[in-house]
Amino acid sequence: MRKFVYSFNEGSRDMRNLLGGKGANLAEMTQIGLPVPFGFTVTTEACNRYYHEECKIAEDIIDQIFEKLSELENVTGKVFGDVSNPLLVSVRSGSVFSMPGMMDTILNLGLNDETTAGLAKLTENERFAYDSYRRFIQMFGDVVLEIPKSKFEDILNEKNQEKNGKYDVDLATEDLKEIISSYKELVRNEIGRDFTQNPKEQLMEAIMAVFRSWNNERAILYRQLNNISSDLGTAVNVQSMVFGNMGDNSGTGVAFTRDPINGQHGIFGEFLINAQGEEVVSGIRTPQPISEMAEAFPDVYKEFLRIAQLLEKHFTDMQNIEFTVEKNKLFLLQSRNAKRTAEAAVKIAVDMELEGLIDKKTAVTRLEPTQITQLLHPKFEEEDLIKAVKLAKGLPASPGAVTGKIYFNARDAETAAINGEKVILTRIETSPEDLAGMVAAEGILTARGGMTSHAAVVARGMGRCCIVGCSEIIVDEEQKTLIIGNIVLTEGQYISLDGTSGIVYKGHVKTVAPELSGNFGTIMKWADEIRTLKVRTNADNLQEAKLALDFGAEGIGLCRTERMFLVESKISLIRKMILTDNEDKIREALLQLLPYQKKEFKSIYEVMRDKPVTIRLLDLSFDEFLPDTTDEIEQLAKQMNVPCNDLIKRIEELRESNPMLGYRGCRLAVTYPDIAAMQTEAIILAAIELKKENNLDIVPEIMVPMVGLAKEFTFIKKIVVDTIDRCFKKENITLNYTVGTMIEVPRAALTADEIAKEAEFFSFGTNDLTQLTFGFSRPDSVKVIQEYRDKLIFEDNPFETIDKNGVGKLVNMAVELGKSVRPNIRLGICGEQGGDPRTVEFCHAAGLNYVSCSPYRVPIARLAAAQAAIAEM
Amino acid sequence: MRKFVYSFNEGSRDMRNLLGGKGANLAEMTQIGLPVPFGFTVTTEACNRYYHEECKIAEDIIDQIFEKLSELENVTGKVFGDVSNPLLVSVRSGSVFSMPGMMDTILNLGLNDETTAGLAKLTENERFAYDSYRRFIQMFGDVVLEIPKSKFEDILNEKNQEKNGKYDVDLATEDLKEIISSYKELVRNEIGRDFTQNPKEQLMEAIMAVFRSWNNERAILYRQLNNISSDLGTAVNVQSMVFGNMGDNSGTGVAFTRDPINGQHGIFGEFLINAQGEEVVSGIRTPQPISEMAEAFPDVYKEFLRIAQLLEKHFTDMQNIEFTVEKNKLFLLQSRNAKRTAEAAVKIAVDMELEGLIDKKTAVTRLEPTQITQLLHPKFEEEDLIKAVKLAKGLPASPGAVTGKIYFNARDAETAAINGEKVILTRIETSPEDLAGMVAAEGILTARGGMTSHAAVVARGMGRCCIVGCSEIIVDEEQKTLIIGNIVLTEGQYISLDGTSGIVYKGHVKTVAPELSGNFGTIMKWADEIRTLKVRTNADNLQEAKLALDFGAEGIGLCRTERMFLVESKISLIRKMILTDNEDKIREALLQLLPYQKKEFKSIYEVMRDKPVTIRLLDLSFDEFLPDTTDEIEQLAKQMNVPCNDLIKRIEELRESNPMLGYRGCRLAVTYPDIAAMQTEAIILAAIELKKENNLDIVPEIMVPMVGLAKEFTFIKKIVVDTIDRCFKKENITLNYTVGTMIEVPRAALTADEIAKEAEFFSFGTNDLTQLTFGFSRPDSVKVIQEYRDKLIFEDNPFETIDKNGVGKLVNMAVELGKSVRPNIRLGICGEQGGDPRTVEFCHAAGLNYVSCSPYRVPIARLAAAQAAIAEM
Repeated sequence: MRKFVYSFNEGSRDMRNLLGGKGANLAEMTQIGLPVPFGFTVTTEACNRYYHEECKIAEDIIDQIFEKLSELENVTGKVFGDVSNPLLVSVRSGSVFSMPGMMDTILNLGLNDETTAGLAKLTENERFAYDSYRRFIQMFGDVVLEIPKSKFEDILNEKNQEKNGKYDVDLATEDLKEIISSYKELVRNEIGRDFTQNPKEQLMEAIMAVFRSWNNERAILYRQLNNISSDLGTAVNVQSMVFGNMGDNSGTGVAFTRDPINGQHGIFGEFLINAQGEEVVSGIRTPQPISEMAEAFPDVYKEFLRIAQLLEKHFTDMQNIEFTVEKNKLFLLQSRNAKRTAEAAVKIAVDMELEGLIDKKTAVTRLEPTQITQLLHPKFEEEDLIKAVKLAKGLPASPGAVTGKIYFNARDAETAAINGEKVILTRIETSPEDLAGMVAAEGILTARGGMTSHAAVVARGMGRCCIVGCSEIIVDEEQKTLIIGNIVLTEGQYISLDGTSGIVYKGHVKTVAPELSGNFGTIMKWADEIRTLKVRTNADNLQEAKLALDFGAEGIGLCRTERMFLVESKISLIRKMILTDNEDKIREALLQLLPYQKKEFKSIYEVMRDKPVTIRLLDLSFDEFLPDTTDEIEQLAKQMNVPCNDLIKRIEELRESNPMLGYRGCRLAVTYPDIAAMQTEAIILAAIELKKENNLDIVPEIMVPMVGLAKEFTFIKKIVVDTIDRCFKKENITLNYTVGTMIEVPRAALTADEIAKEAEFFSFGTNDLTQLTFGFSRPDSVKVIQEYRDKLIFEDNPFETIDKNGVGKLVNMAVELGKSVRPNIRLGICGEQGGDPRTVEFCHAAGLNYVSCSPYRVPIARLAAAQAAIAEM
Repeated sequence: MRKFVYSFNEGSRDMRNLLGGKGANLAEMTQIGLPVPFGFTVTTEACNRYYHEECKIAEDIIDQIFEKLSELENVTGKVFGDVSNPLLVSVRSGSVFSMPGMMDTILNLGLNDETTAGLAKLTENERFAYDSYRRFIQMFGDVVLEIPKSKFEDILNEKNQEKNGKYDVDLATEDLKEIISSYKELVRNEIGRDFTQNPKEQLMEAIMAVFRSWNNERAILYRQLNNISSDLGTAVNVQSMVFGNMGDNSGTGVAFTRDPINGQHGIFGEFLINAQGEEVVSGIRTPQPISEMAEAFPDVYKEFLRIAQLLEKHFTDMQNIEFTVEKNKLFLLQSRNAKRTAEAAVKIAVDMELEGLIDKKTAVTRLEPTQITQLLHPKFEEEDLIKAVKLAKGLPASPGAVTGKIYFNARDAETAAINGEKVILTRIETSPEDLAGMVAAEGILTARGGMTSHAAVVARGMGRCCIVGCSEIIVDEEQKTLIIGNIVLTEGQYISLDGTSGIVYKGHVKTVAPELSGNFGTIMKWADEIRTLKVRTNADNLQEAKLALDFGAEGIGLCRTERMFLVESKISLIRKMILTDNEDKIREALLQLLPYQKKEFKSIYEVMRDKPVTIRLLDLSFDEFLPDTTDEIEQLAKQMNVPCNDLIKRIEELRESNPMLGYRGCRLAVTYPDIAAMQTEAIILAAIELKKENNLDIVPEIMVPMVGLAKEFTFIKKIVVDTIDRCFKKENITLNYTVGTMIEVPRAALTADEIAKEAEFFSFGTNDLTQLTFGFSRPDSVKVIQEYRDKLIFEDNPFETIDKNGVGKLVNMAVELGKSVRPNIRLGICGEQGGDPRTVEFCHAAGLNYVSCSPYRVPIARLAAAQAAIAEM
């Protein structure tokens, strides 16, 4: 019979897929003899069976659960539902990948009217017993019975107010009993039956609630954001309770074995005396720094430090440890690899390699490629910063420097972001319901909560700038105002956040590019040694080329020449060209553009020197050239000396119903070969001049866009080659160069063998390739894609990460077909996805030579390429 | 050494690829002992070498030519360039596929000043000798030296006028000598050297001119139109001359072994006494019916009838024979399978099967599928015809009934056709230069020429309605007028042509659908017995469904439901729905549409009965729904009771920059599942009602459009299935049905295995698939495609015939992937290409179950499917 339930002493850390991360680590810790309250884990397979079997738990699984429950009773010497010595358990979710705040937890399960009375007698602490019962009913009511949490809180608050108390701890036992009575009445009214007094029923309901929570909206959104498959399922951990709330010799805390913000050595964390775990995480009470434990629980603290060290060594990574002290005895509730900022990740990876704990390859895998964006994030411009007005200071929960408009709830923030605004989500504190708003925001500011509060943990994970616990500010979510002293800010006003210092500034503060620190340089050097995939950049001008070189780009994979055409001063030349039929006028216009383009290319070559530069010939549609406004048309008609109405008629003729599928890219070059010839001339003459002036050997790579047919490419290649031959003859010099093509039309991928006969390189234009493979125009599909993600039709946005099954299949086909004809064909990608780590991994596997991405993404791609190479080993 | 030249007694009809059609047939006729003037053929391989070797003829080929020339001298007893007994030859092109009028011919080659004098002496006919020389210089000057023909004609006409002669035959020998002298002067002035007197030089230049003519514009256009590969090359036939212009005991003619218009038995053709071949073909002189030869050359005629019979039996097909009578001796210059009208083709195929000459399969291959469109062509509506004014009567050269605007030259005709006008090309006579205009026209009318004139032959080949030799009309191509008696018609005025009777009507005469004749029915029955591919139709309403059934459709492959939505009375409902956010209003609008759609479906089911009907769910984009004009918007705002500006804003929000790639097809159904549900309900309820009322077992096939992802399909399939289950429950009945998808997005083809898990059938929507695979929007790409065809980038228009290498590859992939998951998946095609014979052949080879096309194309598809099956055997 298949095993669906494992005791903690039956598992190990290698069983993550089956036991979830938490279950596997609890088992591992149990196996190495650490003080873990005993328990068992119901596997992820059981969860999947639950979903496949119409949301019921099968009999054989129930039997196994109760078998392990008996074992737990034996080990603890307590009995479930026994009045004299009741066994209480926690029930927690635990999926393969950590999903903080996404899954639900129930504590103190096993309590009922009778066992509570028994517990009171046993512990000689009636208040503790009833407080535990009160908490249990509330949690169970919320998570399992799905009664709005606020209804429990209303009852609790009412009692607090009645007693003028600030915290629950101020309530007396009698108050708690009254609250319990009200809670039970609430449950009866809400679900139509009594709160169950049967602990086994409680347990089964709780386990099912954990299973259900795998598919709650927040969990789904989190998985989407983090690309976690929804097929994995969650395990359920049932663990005997220990109590941090048994008085002042008890407590609970969370700690990191290094500083998660900057990676410094030394224990880092927070604890609360006389409390249960969720009070630390939720940010309701502000906890004490962990170092103060040395005073409160000196022996326990010493033991804790020893164990923390041991755990880091055992798991060879920085640990995030949850613990409870029950009557001066330490218990470990969880240990897992800790989340950290990019800066910390870099330092810890480099440090651990120096400490001999891990090797270079492992160090390189310890950074999430997307996370390092944080390190590349702009900082505030010094000058602007000096003038900026400081509003307040909070806890620096996630670094970065951002500026944006304040919005007071997730929905408003999302809407504003969709409208293109930069948003700062401003909340009293955040909860999982705010996730979508946090995703949409540039930065997050909360009035309450500590460094391990929801806002802080989630923001760090996403690389969002975040300041929490900013107690100087008053956030009125209803009135949508942010008050600091006598300053009142309303929705839509600018503030700026420095997530590294925790300072909030008034208004819009300018930002500048960051410097790349020493540790970062070290790890990127290691990555470069490992990776085989080259990383180029998309750069259209000197500035971008320079920036990308700073970020380690090894060439330009895409230089778009159309931007040079769309400059105000040049566009009227092009318009005249397109709107006339006179060939002489076309040539005249092009002759005026030639020196301008040549100069641009020359400046780019000069800075790239021996690094390759791929220049794409004009890729614009008629539509982008055509004048829009009446003013523009009238002016142009005057310049062209034609009647305005004639011009309007001609423009209407050229307008297209679907410009993306119209007269664009190389199709224009077929009609206006002179454009391609002029651009080729500029590309080659710039290289010739640098050869003559500076003896620089530039090897231009000329790229034809939107090719769908081999004959199309051949047609344009002939123009290019003829033009170059003419230049060589005239200048009495020859240079090396190559002519290749974008693969961005599905047909080009399908017939790549035909095209490769003539094309010396392929560069996959995955933006257009994705548009055409899906039949989605990117600008028009924003709403469709959102709708599809909401309805779980899309797991990822295919414009952000390559669609492996569809677009990826075309890429693989093109690679295979291309190589069959030209084994050494140079292959690259230059869509925006080129900087996405999963796309980089795909490109590595597909056997491309390079990826090309925007300058800021170059380091991400370098790291992702190294990780792909390591994964392959 | 490779053989590049074959004497006529060395070849056979199986050597078409090497010798061309004409050369192979001349060889075959020689081999079976028919009176063919001896000669030799330079192979198509020699032509290809000419093009590969920089347009030079290699030494080894030249040697072989002169070797065969010696042989020819031996056989004929004449010597090339010999004054006393000169050998004269014709040089003709002959490609693998017949390309009438496309290639150039030179007669009388071998004449120079001296041999002409010799010929005069030998034949004792000085006039004949100098007339031949005159003709030779003119032809050679035109074809080889590329001197404008008109310059020669000017000289000739001048002399004719001087002599008040109407025809060249009226010119005396002295006149001819003067003309020759003027011709030679013209040549000297034009090419800067004398007309060559060296016969061998003449021969080599003529051979090269034939090679060159393979790539002249007309030849290229003809190949494009007829899908002939440009790699085939042409052979050159060098044949000793016989003379039809040696006096009244000589003549020349063209004959068919059956009537090419209606297929009746009996010789059919024309001849001219004392003339050379091109005078018959060019239509300059109107020839006599061939039956009159019985009087002019009784013995020759008897012999000719015997040989004609023999040739038809030998080649097992109706022959088109060119012959010359030289001094009462018959010579065959050519025999080939004759072009014929569709009506004739059908009758001849059926007759020959009955005669035991061919079997049924061969009979089925004897019809060009596209040609049978002629039989399906409309005829004039009787009532309208009675009222119509007869203008004139000409020769009924190609059947059909058309109405259109008159244009007087090819260019104007083309332009008008591009602008969407129906065009009648009206010319004095046509020449190969008019080909593009003939292609663009609905019908062709000429004032001169016989049934075998250029206009007649070409029009029949293309299935264009054509009337020739309409001597009552005066066509003034300069003034662009058509004068009949006192009626003057100008450019752009309507006339109507009856190509079956030869009558020209004034104005616009309405046309009606044809009846299908008995022979046609017979051959279609044979085709149906042979083919394995089913043929369905695209039909959106009862009328189309009925028409398609008459044409033999076996089901509906595509019923587009959006037309039902776009009806004036319904569109405002949809607009309200899309422009509101109120779900109740959406449902209200849909409830109003439901009975209307149900009724439409019911009427279609009723006529199709047990034949399958595929109904496609709504495939429209937002753009198509949105109101355009200010009036429409104002009216709608009033109806919806919202401010006009709000409505305009909402419309602007919904406008898309590329609607083809936007919110359309099943994407709309994801957002508005109620639309899919309503349509499903209409589809199922209509079937249920027919089951209950008439006990008809309808099996609806519900098709989801624009699917790109398996999850998209699953999402909509669930709506469909849930709706159907609801209907079944409510109506207490169940029916069979299937749910499938269009494959029209490249990604659907690439991931067809994923989709086939849920989809029960695939229907390839090759219109959209072509658009997306190429990145071409069909409406926007008309100009691009024309440009590409002009520049030889496109051989075919991919929207007319499937692009096998690109789109076809996707289809093949989808078939393979789909079958890997669902071996019995039903596969069809429903793009417009479904009725294109080459596409049908592709679909047969790809293993599809059916093609679906517009009603008029159903018979074409049936025939093409049979031919594909035969070709496979």
